[in-house]
Amino acid sequence: MTFESKIRPIEWAGDHVKLIDQTALPYEYTTVNIKTWQEMAVAIKDMIVRGAPAIGISGAFGVALGAREFLNSKNLDEFLQKLEMMAIYLKATRPTAVNLMWAVDKQVDYAKSLNLSMPEIVEKLEQNAVKMLNEDIEINKKIGEHGAKIVPKGGTILTHCNAGALATAGYGTALGVARSAYAKDPTIRVFADETRPRQQGARLTAWELVNDGIPTTLITDGMCGYFMKKGEIDVVVVGGDRVALNGDTANKIGTYTVALAAKAHNIPFYVAVPHSTIDASIETGDQIPIEERDAREVTHINGKLVCPEEVNIINPAFDVTPGEYITGIITETGIYKPSELKQAINAIPVS
Amino acid sequence: MTFESKIRPIEWAGDHVKLIDQTALPYEYTTVNIKTWQEMAVAIKDMIVRGAPAIGISGAFGVALGAREFLNSKNLDEFLQKLEMMAIYLKATRPTAVNLMWAVDKQVDYAKSLNLSMPEIVEKLEQNAVKMLNEDIEINKKIGEHGAKIVPKGGTILTHCNAGALATAGYGTALGVARSAYAKDPTIRVFADETRPRQQGARLTAWELVNDGIPTTLITDGMCGYFMKKGEIDVVVVGGDRVALNGDTANKIGTYTVALAAKAHNIPFYVAVPHSTIDASIETGDQIPIEERDAREVTHINGKLVCPEEVNIINPAFDVTPGEYITGIITETGIYKPSELKQAINAIPVS
Repeated sequence: MTFESKIRPIEWAGDHVKLIDQTALPYEYTTVNIKTWQEMAVAIKDMIVRGAPAIGISGAFGVALGAREFLNSKNLDEFLQKLEMMAIYLKATRPTAVNLMWAVDKQVDYAKSLNLSMPEIVEKLEQNAVKMLNEDIEINKKIGEHGAKIVPKGGTILTHCNAGALATAGYGTALGVARSAYAKDPTIRVFADETRPRQQGARLTAWELVNDGIPTTLITDGMCGYFMKKGEIDVVVVGGDRVALNGDTANKIGTYTVALAAKAHNIPFYVAVPHSTIDASIETGDQIPIEERDAREVTHINGKLVCPEEVNIINPAFDVTPGEYITGIITETGIYKPSELKQAINAIPVS
Repeated sequence: MTFESKIRPIEWAGDHVKLIDQTALPYEYTTVNIKTWQEMAVAIKDMIVRGAPAIGISGAFGVALGAREFLNSKNLDEFLQKLEMMAIYLKATRPTAVNLMWAVDKQVDYAKSLNLSMPEIVEKLEQNAVKMLNEDIEINKKIGEHGAKIVPKGGTILTHCNAGALATAGYGTALGVARSAYAKDPTIRVFADETRPRQQGARLTAWELVNDGIPTTLITDGMCGYFMKKGEIDVVVVGGDRVALNGDTANKIGTYTVALAAKAHNIPFYVAVPHSTIDASIETGDQIPIEERDAREVTHINGKLVCPEEVNIINPAFDVTPGEYITGIITETGIYKPSELKQAINAIPVS
C-alpha cells in the first residue's frame, strides 16, 4: 500500500531540467530551469537540489546536458574525453553522497559502452537519466513497503534532515517509510528535527509532510533526548548519503547524536536508502570523506547574522553513525542488519 | 586566580534597576530601566534578563521595587500581604529555575522578620538585593576556582546555553569555570552549542567569550556527538536551573542530549551552580516543573518564519539530566558527586 505524493523535485522537459528550488522552500515554491551541465553543477553545490538520490539523478542529467554541448567535438574520442573531464568536476560538487559518484560514473560508462554516433549517445544518455528518475520512485516505494513494517501501530517516527520526496525523484526514503506506514495506519505521526544549520527538517520535511496531511511535530535538534526519555518516540528513521559495507552510515550532521540518544533509550534506529547509496568499495565509514561547508550556514539564518562575527566556526555537513548503533538498513530489496549488509550486497547484484 | 570580566547584566541605580536587554544581543547592546515590579515581571518572562542566578537577583529587586509602590498601604499588615501576593506573581513568571523562588521568598521572609516601619523595610529590601547582587559575583568566582581544576591543560570545554556573566550578576557559573581555567591556562578553548530555539549559545555565550578574548568555536546543537567522537571535547560544563538532592539537574533544553553523548564517549560532564540553585525540598528531578514556552520561539528566528505555519510545535524550555550522567556538581563550596550532594547540602547551611 503506497501513499500518493505529487512532489517531483526533478523533471525532464525535453531539452532541460526543471528543479524545485529547495533553498527557497517553504517561503516560496519556485522552479529553476537547468540548461547546461555547469548550471547543474552550481545547483548541486548550492543545494537547489539536495538529498543523496536526488543529486545522483541530477548528476546523471548533468552528464546528458554536457554531452549535448560536446557535440561540437572533432571526434568520438574527444567527445568521451570531455565527458570524463566533466564527470570529475560534477562529482566534486558534493563529496560525501555516493549516489552522485554512482550515477555520473554510470552515465559515462554507458556512453563509452555504446557503439553509436555522438547525437545517438546524447539521446541515450537523456533516456537513461529519465529511466533513473522513474526507477527511483519505484525503488522508494519498495523501501516504503519494507520499512512500514517496523513502525508500530499508532507509533511515532523521529526523523532528521530531509530524506523525503524532495531528496529523491519523489516519495522519499525515510519519509517514504513514513508515507507507506501512514497509508496503512493513519494514526502514526512524525517528529521532525529542525536540522541546523540548513534547517532541512523545518523547511523541507515539515513542508512535505504538512502538504501530505501527515501529522508532524517540529522539534529543535537538542530536544530529541527529552522526547525519547518521555517515551514519545517509537522508532528513528533517517536517510543516508553513503553506507559502508559494515553499515557505518554518513548522513546529515546531527544524525550520530540522535543515534546515541536512541541507543541510550533502546529505541530502534533505522537507515532507509536505495542500494545506490551503499558504497561496496569501502569496508567502514572511516573512508567516507566529510564535506565541510561555508561558515555562513551556521552564522546566518535567512541572511541575518545570529552570532558575533568574530567567533570560530567549523561546519561539517555530515557525520558517520557506526553500524553498531543501527538496527537495520531498509532498502528496496529488504531490511538488513549492518552485520548482514556486505553479504546481502554481494548476493544481490544491482544494475 | 580569576579573570576580569566587565559584563554586568543587572545594576542598581538607586531607585530603579538597569538590565542589559539580552533579547537584543549580540546585534545591539542596550539597557532597559526597570522602575516597577510589574516591569520586572515582564522582563523576566520575556527573557530580557535570563539565567537562574540572574533572575533570582532580578526577582529580589522586583520585591524591593514593589515594596516602595506599596508604601501607600493602610498599615504594615496590608503592606506585607501585598508583598506576598506580588511574590506569587513574580515566582510564576519562570517556573523551572529555583533561584527565583529562593530569592523572592528570601526577600519576603526578610521583610516579615524586620520589626521596622514600611519605609525602613523598603530600604532594607533594596540593600538586601544589592547584597545578593554583590555576593553572587563572589560565589561565581569561587565556583570558577573549584571548577578550573577539572579542565585539563590545553583542554576544550563544551558548554550549552549561556551560564555566563549574563546569566548571573557577572562572571558566570559554567563560563566562570571557563574564565578561571583560561586565567590559569590560556591554551584552553571553548566550544559553544548554538542552543536552539533561543540561541543563547550563539547570541550570548559566543558574545561574552569573544569579548573576553577566550578562543571560542560555535557549533550547532546536533554537532556535539561528531566533535566528541573526533576527540575534540575534553569536558562538558553547563549551568543549571534547579538541582534536586540526588543531583538530577534541570537545565536548558538540549542539555540532556549532550549528557547522553558525553556518557557514550566517557567525557566528564559537570554542572556548575551556586547553592541557591539546589532545591533541598525535592529528592529527584521528577518533581521539577518544566516550563513550556511559545511555539514562536521554534517557528521564528529574528521575526521570520522558518517552517510551514501549520506544523505542530512542542517547546519545552528545559530538560532534566539524571544525576547518573553527571560527574560532579561544581559549587562555591566545592565539587560534589551527585550521590554526595544531599549530605553535603545538609552539612553546609547556606544563608
